[in-house]
Amino acid sequence: MMGGFNHYVVVKFKDGVAVEELTEGLVKMVSGIEHVKSFQWGKDIGGPDFLRQGFTHAFLMTFNGKEEFDAFQSHPNHVEFSKLFSPAVENILVLDFPPTIVKA
Amino acid sequence: MMGGFNHYVVVKFKDGVAVEELTEGLVKMVSGIEHVKSFQWGKDIGGPDFLRQGFTHAFLMTFNGKEEFDAFQSHPNHVEFSKLFSPAVENILVLDFPPTIVKA
Repeated sequence: MMGGFNHYVVVKFKDGVAVEELTEGLVKMVSGIEHVKSFQWGKDIGGPDFLRQGFTHAFLMTFNGKEEFDAFQSHPNHVEFSKLFSPAVENILVLDFPPTIVKA
Repeated sequence: MMGGFNHYVVVKFKDGVAVEELTEGLVKMVSGIEHVKSFQWGKDIGGPDFLRQGFTHAFLMTFNGKEEFDAFQSHPNHVEFSKLFSPAVENILVLDFPPTIVKA
């Protein structure tokens, strides 16, 4: 089954960043934008560090389609929050893809 | 809302790998293991390459808990498939985390 559009972001924050405060702001920003279909995030508690390559946080947003994702990307609240978020980021990885849902 | 356990994998395959065949095998393997709650995957069609850092594929699995994830990790079909999958991988990033579900 295909459909929708996923925005997967993996982050390593800079030392000294108030990560909890920042993720709270992110949650608030994302929650307030209606184009976002689903949103979950978490902090890695996994295995060996070579597998996470220094990254610590994963953020997954899903959308009903590419149009909704584009609307999210250019939403003023998103653009505004990015000014706060980007300087706090040491490394970021982003994958955007139409998902194949194997098991729902 | 918290609960469950996520296993998010991002991969760059080696040149010359039969990626479609391999992902078909992966889909079959994951589908056959009952401990997996949900599974979706996709190939990045996103923006600039510096944001995906060479990675192309995302595989997102969720579980009802860490126990189910551990059972998946050590499942014979998984272990067996890894022997095929690992040599095909040029770079891999794995984040394992209990997700905070902001929007379901």
